[in-house]
Amino acid sequence: MTAPAPAPADIFAKRESEVRSYCRNWPAAFDTAQGARIHDRDGRSWLDFFAGAGSLNYGHNNPALKQALIDYISRDGVTLGLDMHTEAKRMFLESFERRILQPRNMDHKMMFTGPTGTNAVEAALKLARKAKGRQSVVSFTNAFHGMSLGSLAVTGNAFKRAGAGIPLVHGTPMPYDDYLDGKTPDFLWFERLLEGSGSGLNRPAAVIVETVQGEGGVNVARAEWLRALAELCKRHDILLIVDDIQMGCGRTGAFFSFEEAGIEPDIITLSKSIGGYGLPMALTLFRPELDIWEPAEHNGTFRGNNPAFVTATAALDTYWSDDRLTKQTLTHAERVEAALAAICAEHQDAGARYRGRGLVWGLTFADKERAAAVCARAYDLGLLLETSGAESEVVKLLPPLTITPDELDEGLAILTRAVAESAS
Amino acid sequence: MTAPAPAPADIFAKRESEVRSYCRNWPAAFDTAQGARIHDRDGRSWLDFFAGAGSLNYGHNNPALKQALIDYISRDGVTLGLDMHTEAKRMFLESFERRILQPRNMDHKMMFTGPTGTNAVEAALKLARKAKGRQSVVSFTNAFHGMSLGSLAVTGNAFKRAGAGIPLVHGTPMPYDDYLDGKTPDFLWFERLLEGSGSGLNRPAAVIVETVQGEGGVNVARAEWLRALAELCKRHDILLIVDDIQMGCGRTGAFFSFEEAGIEPDIITLSKSIGGYGLPMALTLFRPELDIWEPAEHNGTFRGNNPAFVTATAALDTYWSDDRLTKQTLTHAERVEAALAAICAEHQDAGARYRGRGLVWGLTFADKERAAAVCARAYDLGLLLETSGAESEVVKLLPPLTITPDELDEGLAILTRAVAESAS
Amino acid sequence: MTAPAPAPADIFAKRESEVRSYCRNWPAAFDTAQGARIHDRDGRSWLDFFAGAGSLNYGHNNPALKQALIDYISRDGVTLGLDMHTEAKRMFLESFERRILQPRNMDHKMMFTGPTGTNAVEAALKLARKAKGRQSVVSFTNAFHGMSLGSLAVTGNAFKRAGAGIPLVHGTPMPYDDYLDGKTPDFLWFERLLEGSGSGLNRPAAVIVETVQGEGGVNVARAEWLRALAELCKRHDILLIVDDIQMGCGRTGAFFSFEEAGIEPDIITLSKSIGGYGLPMALTLFRPELDIWEPAEHNGTFRGNNPAFVTATAALDTYWSDDRLTKQTLTHAERVEAALAAICAEHQDAGARYRGRGLVWGLTFADKERAAAVCARAYDLGLLLETSGAESEVVKLLPPLTITPDELDEGLAILTRAVAESAS
Amino acid sequence: MTAPAPAPADIFAKRESEVRSYCRNWPAAFDTAQGARIHDRDGRSWLDFFAGAGSLNYGHNNPALKQALIDYISRDGVTLGLDMHTEAKRMFLESFERRILQPRNMDHKMMFTGPTGTNAVEAALKLARKAKGRQSVVSFTNAFHGMSLGSLAVTGNAFKRAGAGIPLVHGTPMPYDDYLDGKTPDFLWFERLLEGSGSGLNRPAAVIVETVQGEGGVNVARAEWLRALAELCKRHDILLIVDDIQMGCGRTGAFFSFEEAGIEPDIITLSKSIGGYGLPMALTLFRPELDIWEPAEHNGTFRGNNPAFVTATAALDTYWSDDRLTKQTLTHAERVEAALAAICAEHQDAGARYRGRGLVWGLTFADKERAAAVCARAYDLGLLLETSGAESEVVKLLPPLTITPDELDEGLAILTRAVAESAS
Repeated sequence: MTAPAPAPADIFAKRESEVRSYCRNWPAAFDTAQGARIHDRDGRSWLDFFAGAGSLNYGHNNPALKQALIDYISRDGVTLGLDMHTEAKRMFLESFERRILQPRNMDHKMMFTGPTGTNAVEAALKLARKAKGRQSVVSFTNAFHGMSLGSLAVTGNAFKRAGAGIPLVHGTPMPYDDYLDGKTPDFLWFERLLEGSGSGLNRPAAVIVETVQGEGGVNVARAEWLRALAELCKRHDILLIVDDIQMGCGRTGAFFSFEEAGIEPDIITLSKSIGGYGLPMALTLFRPELDIWEPAEHNGTFRGNNPAFVTATAALDTYWSDDRLTKQTLTHAERVEAALAAICAEHQDAGARYRGRGLVWGLTFADKERAAAVCARAYDLGLLLETSGAESEVVKLLPPLTITPDELDEGLAILTRAVAESAS
Repeated sequence: MTAPAPAPADIFAKRESEVRSYCRNWPAAFDTAQGARIHDRDGRSWLDFFAGAGSLNYGHNNPALKQALIDYISRDGVTLGLDMHTEAKRMFLESFERRILQPRNMDHKMMFTGPTGTNAVEAALKLARKAKGRQSVVSFTNAFHGMSLGSLAVTGNAFKRAGAGIPLVHGTPMPYDDYLDGKTPDFLWFERLLEGSGSGLNRPAAVIVETVQGEGGVNVARAEWLRALAELCKRHDILLIVDDIQMGCGRTGAFFSFEEAGIEPDIITLSKSIGGYGLPMALTLFRPELDIWEPAEHNGTFRGNNPAFVTATAALDTYWSDDRLTKQTLTHAERVEAALAAICAEHQDAGARYRGRGLVWGLTFADKERAAAVCARAYDLGLLLETSGAESEVVKLLPPLTITPDELDEGLAILTRAVAESAS
Repeated sequence: MTAPAPAPADIFAKRESEVRSYCRNWPAAFDTAQGARIHDRDGRSWLDFFAGAGSLNYGHNNPALKQALIDYISRDGVTLGLDMHTEAKRMFLESFERRILQPRNMDHKMMFTGPTGTNAVEAALKLARKAKGRQSVVSFTNAFHGMSLGSLAVTGNAFKRAGAGIPLVHGTPMPYDDYLDGKTPDFLWFERLLEGSGSGLNRPAAVIVETVQGEGGVNVARAEWLRALAELCKRHDILLIVDDIQMGCGRTGAFFSFEEAGIEPDIITLSKSIGGYGLPMALTLFRPELDIWEPAEHNGTFRGNNPAFVTATAALDTYWSDDRLTKQTLTHAERVEAALAAICAEHQDAGARYRGRGLVWGLTFADKERAAAVCARAYDLGLLLETSGAESEVVKLLPPLTITPDELDEGLAILTRAVAESAS
Repeated sequence: MTAPAPAPADIFAKRESEVRSYCRNWPAAFDTAQGARIHDRDGRSWLDFFAGAGSLNYGHNNPALKQALIDYISRDGVTLGLDMHTEAKRMFLESFERRILQPRNMDHKMMFTGPTGTNAVEAALKLARKAKGRQSVVSFTNAFHGMSLGSLAVTGNAFKRAGAGIPLVHGTPMPYDDYLDGKTPDFLWFERLLEGSGSGLNRPAAVIVETVQGEGGVNVARAEWLRALAELCKRHDILLIVDDIQMGCGRTGAFFSFEEAGIEPDIITLSKSIGGYGLPMALTLFRPELDIWEPAEHNGTFRGNNPAFVTATAALDTYWSDDRLTKQTLTHAERVEAALAAICAEHQDAGARYRGRGLVWGLTFADKERAAAVCARAYDLGLLLETSGAESEVVKLLPPLTITPDELDEGLAILTRAVAESAS
């Protein structure tokens, strides 16, 4: 495809629904991208600290993956395979087993769902309900798990929930780590509800949790909180689902974000960066004893998106045969934290605070509007940055893991300037 | 990617969930494909009358689309764009407007949802509920709309519904065309329910319908039935959603399957073949006055799967700038119908009957098990054919639209032989 | 109690909710009543063809029951007994067994629920769901089963349903006898839904039905329709619940309204006239194998309303030790039918039509407003008559079963005159 | 009615459902009762510290009420009046206004619902949902509001909830006063959920609360907790429903149990003792601006149980024209508390503890089984006492308010002895 003749500027406005959102803050029409940089047709470019909402951990159009992809397409590899056996899927399964599961002593089975995060979550919830014979699922304040009705029912955002058009039921929210006053014992309420036979809680089949809530405002659960949660689930015969769609695939350092806490969830959802190249792919993993599905009890046309298997395999082989990427992520993390600490020190009067882990960080201000102003200024200065949180009150840093130190410094410098220049 | 060293035959069994299904009937591990043919590593090949469950209307790895795709990847075109403006999306929007909407005088707006059919349906249902302020949606017997909870609630299959693990509510089934005894007036029951204030029907926001029920058994609605349905919806202020995910993109001849009936739905869902190359993509179209979405009220990470926009655009430009494909489909249809008529004539004693439209056809026998036997034999003879229907009682023919007459004849000959050789 | 000093006329308007309804058509403040007559304080009296919405089958303040009641109260019989054993309850159980169950060879067990019809229905639905492990219940167009959420979900009236304030789910309406066009085979749709595994029907635990729909417009199911329904339930392992709250206790002739059809429901609800004197009482009967309740799994404070047991026993002993009441009801029925036939003959031009059975009859006109006008005129002329039906389009006749022939004639004469004088 | 000839001992077992419960602990067949005493046919009698689960605040067959009732029945007062105006209802309305509402400056309107507590709660929930246009209702741990589906959804008891046979939704439990660890600030969680737009809480239409949870284990909310709850509801535009079915009508001293806290609920439910004599009656009160019901939008056959209006009026006139009963209740309360304090002092080693207010008290032991043992022993010694709490772990004292000091002492002495004699 060669770039098209200039189009009427308003084809997007004319034909695309009002539902679109990112393009409102970033009005450029992007065209090409490599690594941590994205470009529009007029030659303007931005450093990308958004990384496809965490789907581009290995950067845009990563060369190693790109070559594998072009090779596969060129040789007419099967593109859409439903759930047929294909060589591309076989290679992915083998690589995932060798690089990820075996080293961690995990015997989980894999299910390829429709290639979006919400499809993987829907499958996880169905399986948990089937396995336990219960309907209710516990989720957490500020959780985000997806927009189809099953996932939305365990998502916290009131605006997104209202979009359902029907009452969302069968989910019960519990306070996420540090949601309350910092003094209330963790799980006090949850555990009392489970223990009391008069509590009114519909006994849950499962708990679904993110180790770091990306969309919810970069809320970081402590490892001990996660361990206590896993323990509580075990004690009460509740399945633990970790939604690792945004935080998995190395975002926090290790491949799975829950490894640091030393827990092993019953069910795990992966999507976003699992395909490696930004191609749609989603996986639900579960302990083998939970593999009680009947054939075709859950399905989806694009669950066999073979080009994504190819790039996913290349990503595993390139980045997860040793611990170099993990180490680099943790090194990068120190750089980010230092920059954020400096920003917060300088903007103490504005109530600047930061939090994060690995390469996901959040920056907040007393004035909740400030985050949007920082991101807007950053865009002008050549950096893509998004807000998160229920009130868009958090500047979220989500650079590619493969970003170079220089690019990282450059982005952090722009952030520092954007903060300074966004004071009202 | 070069093909891998032989893998342990059982990695699929070892690591992939029991939920997989197609691979059980087609045990080959497929590797490459072109047009109407798919191959395994050992050089065996099959004619494909399944076409990715209708996702490969233009055949496997269609050369025109393939080139555009490789070019785009090679020049580092943006891969994952969320709902940012990209040049690839702009080209798709323009092409879709020029090739599809304008010639049909349609002023619908487009919404890119997560790239699977069920995501497009979830968006359609949300929008209808929001627009009408009602919760209930009417669907039809044997409907299939997807596996996430919103779509599953309007899907008929009892086995798939049971997988939800919660009661599926807010949907009411009505009899599809020819579901009853052939004597009861169409919509008698539906209309009485709507008219009576004591009927107990929760007033629906929308009706969702397929013009041909592919998964449900190749049930073909007559044009006059569809027109009467559209009329009824209008009269009762109910939105009409046509789920054209499997039947759209030329499967029945015209681009939209409802064109023949001369109706114009309020909301249309597209997926499967819209991406052209088998890459995940999904669209929800709706009348402009229904575009009441707030920004980000519905979203999804992979809704900006730009490689699919590229192949989708190439497909529109290649196949929908004139009516050649439509005409060819209708010509092919005659060939298929003739072959099916011959089969049915020969197997009258087995109660063989056929039905279909365009390039979607179904073949049934008095013995419901026969369909599976036919497909199994066809596989052995080199033809991929699937069953459909709630009891897998229908042999479904879904060849690529771009199949050559010779290939079509070859496939029909294999089918004829498979029928003959599957008698018990 | 002596009658009070005249009260401010508007205490009702001042303090009673706008929800009240009967008093809007019948503005008198009633004070005393005997048999088929009710009186206000100023000495005006009305013949009562409403009978407490079917709760006063034995007339107002029936002397035989009144004496038993006064005796019981006078001797300090236990008033409220919860579900403790009391002598009054024992006597009721014995009498109900002797007079009702044994002669009909019924081995049903009895459950005293909170003393309102809707409580009995809630218990019936709970039990059916528990017994079958399914959630859905099939009800019929124009059904009325009560106003608490469980019962309301199986009630047809759209206005009353809307009052729930939440979507009412887990119920599916089916066409009642003669609801469609009179040509469609009975249960064609229902049976197809049950047979097809792709129908989208949530498999029901039970069907709940009234043999005559009193509130729904005096719709009379034919005996063969009821038999076919019972047969269908049996064939598909669905429980049959007959809600005999308004039509039981002799209203249609026999004690149970379903006796004429020769069916034996799995679950039966009774209330209204079972207490005999208009005192609150309700019963749910079920086959002994359905008695799978745990102690206290369903309860209610006033389920042991012992004064009602006393009058209920007296009613059984007085009226159901032989078949005189049944015969008299059928004789009365002929008188009513003759009068209605005459009215309809005279008002053929107004489209007058009647229907009914036993002592429940409905009279309709082409002009749906006419029914209300007839009732209003009847009130002025000294007869209490109510409308029923979703649009209040039916004049409903529901005189006490114990009415004298003279009173019946008097009431029918007033009705005849009210029809004549209500023509617009 | 004269007492019947001895009946087969097992008519209850033979014909009454297994659902019955009280009769299992109290196997006597009770026959007559006066004041605080109840008798069986054989002359055995018990002091009644259960009082019809709080429905007999004025004792069994209270002479003043009894005379009014017999007079009304004798003069053929209307028995069942639906929602027609009757003289008996007029008198009740006037008396309730004069004795209860006016002295408290309450302008609430009254709605007579089906005469059971759960019907009053169903009406309250419907009204709240209609008024606020929201579906969700917040209730509290260990709440009990009734057994029909609407009320059950806001009831805590897991066993009773399971009886629904469908998932109970649209309710969210919050911790009742002192449910957590005594250190967590009241409403910390609730308020955070309401304030956070990402909390996942479906915004509630109303909160429903009991000031003392009778069935839930005699849990007493502090006045300041109730005030803070009322304040929170106001701040967040949520309706406050006080379910005063068991604790109203003087049980805690004042007529309404919430008066002590100085709050004024938007909606109040009354039943149990409102009828005075144990006759079924129920009321829902609400602020006049909430009277948005349409006529007949909620109804029920026995909502006009006129004999109950008569005894209710007599009870109001006899006991609520001055504050003598309130004072006596508080005096009685001191007596009860002293006795319980003594018991707990004596049985400190068994972990005996008590709590209560007015004439509702609970006694617990470290060994949860002890409560049932105490009640069983009390029965043998001539005292009716019931357990409450989700695990039946609380001995509940609920004597008639009109009990004499001597009877109270006698009952407390039996209790003291039963505690002593139930040690294992």
